[in-house]
Amino acid sequence: MTAATACGRLEPRAGGKPQHQQENGMIEFALFGAGRIGKIHAANLARHPGAKLKYVVDRHAPSAEALAHAHGAQVADVERALGDPAITAVVIASSTDTHADLIVAAANAGKAVFCEKPVDLTVERSRVCADVVRRSGVTCMIGFQRRFDPTFAALKARVERGEIGAPEMLVVTSRDPGAPPVDYIRSSGGIFKDMLIHDFDVFRWILGDEAQTLHATGSCLTDPAVHDAGDIDSTAVTIRTRRGLLCQINTSRRAAYGYDQRFELLGSHGMLQAGNVRPTEVSAWLAAGIATDVPEPFFLERYRHAYAAEIAHFVDALRDGTPVRTTIDDGLAALELAEAAMTSWKTGRVIEL
Amino acid sequence: MTAATACGRLEPRAGGKPQHQQENGMIEFALFGAGRIGKIHAANLARHPGAKLKYVVDRHAPSAEALAHAHGAQVADVERALGDPAITAVVIASSTDTHADLIVAAANAGKAVFCEKPVDLTVERSRVCADVVRRSGVTCMIGFQRRFDPTFAALKARVERGEIGAPEMLVVTSRDPGAPPVDYIRSSGGIFKDMLIHDFDVFRWILGDEAQTLHATGSCLTDPAVHDAGDIDSTAVTIRTRRGLLCQINTSRRAAYGYDQRFELLGSHGMLQAGNVRPTEVSAWLAAGIATDVPEPFFLERYRHAYAAEIAHFVDALRDGTPVRTTIDDGLAALELAEAAMTSWKTGRVIEL
Amino acid sequence: MTAATACGRLEPRAGGKPQHQQENGMIEFALFGAGRIGKIHAANLARHPGAKLKYVVDRHAPSAEALAHAHGAQVADVERALGDPAITAVVIASSTDTHADLIVAAANAGKAVFCEKPVDLTVERSRVCADVVRRSGVTCMIGFQRRFDPTFAALKARVERGEIGAPEMLVVTSRDPGAPPVDYIRSSGGIFKDMLIHDFDVFRWILGDEAQTLHATGSCLTDPAVHDAGDIDSTAVTIRTRRGLLCQINTSRRAAYGYDQRFELLGSHGMLQAGNVRPTEVSAWLAAGIATDVPEPFFLERYRHAYAAEIAHFVDALRDGTPVRTTIDDGLAALELAEAAMTSWKTGRVIEL
Amino acid sequence: MTAATACGRLEPRAGGKPQHQQENGMIEFALFGAGRIGKIHAANLARHPGAKLKYVVDRHAPSAEALAHAHGAQVADVERALGDPAITAVVIASSTDTHADLIVAAANAGKAVFCEKPVDLTVERSRVCADVVRRSGVTCMIGFQRRFDPTFAALKARVERGEIGAPEMLVVTSRDPGAPPVDYIRSSGGIFKDMLIHDFDVFRWILGDEAQTLHATGSCLTDPAVHDAGDIDSTAVTIRTRRGLLCQINTSRRAAYGYDQRFELLGSHGMLQAGNVRPTEVSAWLAAGIATDVPEPFFLERYRHAYAAEIAHFVDALRDGTPVRTTIDDGLAALELAEAAMTSWKTGRVIEL
Repeated sequence: MTAATACGRLEPRAGGKPQHQQENGMIEFALFGAGRIGKIHAANLARHPGAKLKYVVDRHAPSAEALAHAHGAQVADVERALGDPAITAVVIASSTDTHADLIVAAANAGKAVFCEKPVDLTVERSRVCADVVRRSGVTCMIGFQRRFDPTFAALKARVERGEIGAPEMLVVTSRDPGAPPVDYIRSSGGIFKDMLIHDFDVFRWILGDEAQTLHATGSCLTDPAVHDAGDIDSTAVTIRTRRGLLCQINTSRRAAYGYDQRFELLGSHGMLQAGNVRPTEVSAWLAAGIATDVPEPFFLERYRHAYAAEIAHFVDALRDGTPVRTTIDDGLAALELAEAAMTSWKTGRVIEL
Repeated sequence: MTAATACGRLEPRAGGKPQHQQENGMIEFALFGAGRIGKIHAANLARHPGAKLKYVVDRHAPSAEALAHAHGAQVADVERALGDPAITAVVIASSTDTHADLIVAAANAGKAVFCEKPVDLTVERSRVCADVVRRSGVTCMIGFQRRFDPTFAALKARVERGEIGAPEMLVVTSRDPGAPPVDYIRSSGGIFKDMLIHDFDVFRWILGDEAQTLHATGSCLTDPAVHDAGDIDSTAVTIRTRRGLLCQINTSRRAAYGYDQRFELLGSHGMLQAGNVRPTEVSAWLAAGIATDVPEPFFLERYRHAYAAEIAHFVDALRDGTPVRTTIDDGLAALELAEAAMTSWKTGRVIEL
Repeated sequence: MTAATACGRLEPRAGGKPQHQQENGMIEFALFGAGRIGKIHAANLARHPGAKLKYVVDRHAPSAEALAHAHGAQVADVERALGDPAITAVVIASSTDTHADLIVAAANAGKAVFCEKPVDLTVERSRVCADVVRRSGVTCMIGFQRRFDPTFAALKARVERGEIGAPEMLVVTSRDPGAPPVDYIRSSGGIFKDMLIHDFDVFRWILGDEAQTLHATGSCLTDPAVHDAGDIDSTAVTIRTRRGLLCQINTSRRAAYGYDQRFELLGSHGMLQAGNVRPTEVSAWLAAGIATDVPEPFFLERYRHAYAAEIAHFVDALRDGTPVRTTIDDGLAALELAEAAMTSWKTGRVIEL
Repeated sequence: MTAATACGRLEPRAGGKPQHQQENGMIEFALFGAGRIGKIHAANLARHPGAKLKYVVDRHAPSAEALAHAHGAQVADVERALGDPAITAVVIASSTDTHADLIVAAANAGKAVFCEKPVDLTVERSRVCADVVRRSGVTCMIGFQRRFDPTFAALKARVERGEIGAPEMLVVTSRDPGAPPVDYIRSSGGIFKDMLIHDFDVFRWILGDEAQTLHATGSCLTDPAVHDAGDIDSTAVTIRTRRGLLCQINTSRRAAYGYDQRFELLGSHGMLQAGNVRPTEVSAWLAAGIATDVPEPFFLERYRHAYAAEIAHFVDALRDGTPVRTTIDDGLAALELAEAAMTSWKTGRVIEL
């Protein structure tokens, strides 16, 4: 099944709001993808009192079996998982190129969908998916876990309480501890779609406004192999919103000191800063300086609580019939910004949105 | 059953090392006490893949039932719990006055014991307990959870790696966010046995040395009711060890800004500081100042990870037959310091140990 | 004397290197401008053992008299000051529109020149000035005091020692505590020439590279009066250098929490951050948060040490015949970036330099 | 002249309040002691617009000459300096054993006195001095410069404004970067009189209360030579005041990371902390940790602003006829605490005051 055929064959299922809860009050899940992030979601589902992981689906049988075994689930293929009426929802944590097909198939089967970002590497297919989801009426949440990070979420809540008055300027620092293998980079869709897509979502979420103009530039500074793969590893993006608010994003694939995830929002009455999370609160006072821990090493550690919170939010939303906070439209909007950034970088021009 | 009779009847069970593991690899537990801290231990046992909570025991039936229900356990009384050969270990989280009896009874029944601090409010009964435990050969761990706090444990590991050379002086700041009800204070054994017992354990653990002299003073500064209950709420303790190392502990029942748990260790080559843990890493830059979060509100939040880690350590030690890190002798030693501090405070004299 | 005539009449004085020192070892100065910044320079000259302030020149006689009196100097007009052969050097701290004329006149008179930024509001006249200075052979230093700030200078020295490897990305945060009067804004040349000119100099200094492309955008967010004056108060600038290094600058005329002057430089082996300076190291731990001081209120306080250090550097350079660190060419280069930023903002286009 | 004879011959000069100001408005000073701290005071006097350094007195002629030359002063001996009616005030920065004699001689000569701590190494002679000063009616200020440190002074002001409610507990950390030469230690009066005397003054100043009981202990941990000199290098002091407030002081002669001068005051509504001052605000984010500068290296740097402020305060007090903030009674009170601490340490007993 390809996305094209899936989308082409789309027949939104009849009937109204999907029934999301089994009689025993547990929502049963199928998980697609038993890799690094799939394991995180499986463990968080296992810990949630209202969720039950029933199926694990992965082309790589040993991975599927190991993960299913660890959580008392069964190994299945896509058809069986989507064909089981006991399954209320799916979590899509497989490789990016499978997202669109699986979203469409799950929506067609009337399953609620939690899908890792991005929806797809192309805006076009993402739009088709969004359309299928809309017409099917299923709940579809995109895994922008940063919105569920305790620090980022607390900042957002304080902005909304008016603590710093009207937002004016957002500065986002987003740096990975080191570039992924070049093979990954080649199929990643490029730094804007792979890495900055999260930052674009943070921008939209925190400022609560949409981009009017966008400028992006960048360089390959860490490894010529990244350049050879047609990508860059360091970017500088500026967005001006419809209301004239400003946003600057700086990213790098390599921060020698670890995973650096900060932002600060200047408002009319002050500023709120979201800092990194450290493994411990030890500081060493030595002749060479007074040193604290570097940030958590990478996203699995930094966003550990965020991953748990986003799944809990998804389960709760299904249980309560309330909307999810990060929709497929958010996924589409972030992707459009990534596309614009790529164009700006390649053409050297400012993009009007 | 009183401790006296329990201790008097003591007949350490025959046979060698207790068998700690069921055939399915799960260690089965009985929990005594379904209160605030009992709930924490129950949840951590439930989360541990090698442990199974079988019984919950509490005089207050509704509490026992609710907690048992939440974790698929059964309500039982002491006799049934200790009489079940499937039970390998007990967790004692009931009120302080029941600790000694339960330790003795469990040891007599050949159960491994995890017991909240203190062993008892008197040194005498604590010694009897320690003796029973020793002769029975059961594993007995005392819940000095601070040793399992990620920040404190990291500091200790770095000291042991020699990062600051030879330890010289420890300064411990230990402040509660507010005094407990006076009724609690009356039966608590006083601030030294109730609150500083943890700090005395930290002192012994971090400096790796024993007290030679101890001086304690204090005042009632927060609430006259504390004074009327025969206690104080603010203390200043100084210990000099056998090797001449110094330790100062300052405590208060009330820190308006929250639960303040810090210490710093000066060594010949530098200093290591253990700071508070904050709920988030947001800072607010306002005209009035640049403010970060206050510390986690109280011990349940601050030591959340520590509680999980200590139970995991206990389960692992039982599984592997390895020693536990906080023994009943540690409990006894901390209590002796608390007793000495109380005497120093009351007499205004320096105590030789 | 207008700049046009001054420039037109330019006859670089014959002879070689100016003689910079009187027989008693003191370098004698004339100061143009007895305002806020003139007073700073006067006090720093007075404190320097190798400098003597002989003349104060200001159209506003009471200001000139008061300042001259405070430092044992004499009031003079431009002609007398420049005509006195005892005068080796001048400090130009008068209004921006007088800078070019005074530089030219002083250079023609063979006096060494220290001039506040900017050289002039137009690149054209600045170039003429630079040309006059070059041909006259006099020393001419532009007051980019940030290069002399202890924190910034320490960071620069550590970069040069290789502490973070090869520089890659500079992020500059530069925010005033509040907008100046609109009258000032009207004659200021706009935010890019008035405020960001310092940030452009920091960019050139810290990265040690020149801009290849520049993008600037901005908004008027704090006060419509700024917009009515044809200016903006919030800007976001991105520069990519010839070697592909990246720089982002964010500025605002209003930070409710004070004068915010920070930057951070990411390199291949780590990052160096230059933070704000606080009046005191008091922190308040209150129920509402743990708060430190806001930054020094404005540039006079924040750059107090920098102002002293730049004048000392100028005096030392004259005494030793060594080059100054911030030349008129630096002033010209920063102005060209400001001009490019203004064009980028107005046209919405990326500028090639 | 010995203190004994000086004190014995004491005849407080006739007449009322000393005339503190010359006709030209300048207060003329004699400085005793041209060493490290004498140079600081000389430079600060030179910078003060209301003060003039007329004489420098030092047994070591080259030192006196060099310092006098640097500030346009004259070299003199004690008699000439005290005999000159133009001299209004003296600054005593000579070795500790000369303080008492010089205070008495200056008071007898009707000169206002600024004297470095301590008044004398014995309480007895200090009392005689205080008596002479009192009867002579001259102003006498003791150089407890910490009260003039911007951070400490700001904290004190905020306590007085009620920011943290009623003070309850003070924790003082006071560590030198390294022990002085053993020769110095031998004649220093011991760590309590030499080093902690400042901390005892901070205690009295910040808590605004007097000691009721004091306990001190300590060890020699850094260098056996200190022990051989009869001293210790690490101390732990606890004071309980008349109102029941608590104070703990921990000190060491050696902090490998520099001069560590902090204190924190817990009050009923929160805490105020006074932190160290750093040379710069650079932080380095490296793989090994995120490091800031260590504190200023030693007291000359840390208290640079405090030294200037205390002399300015002295000059202003003389000019305005207002009282000084650190009197000889403060010097005496701090010395009495040092004496008590020494006794407590030597006897192992708690001292009642």
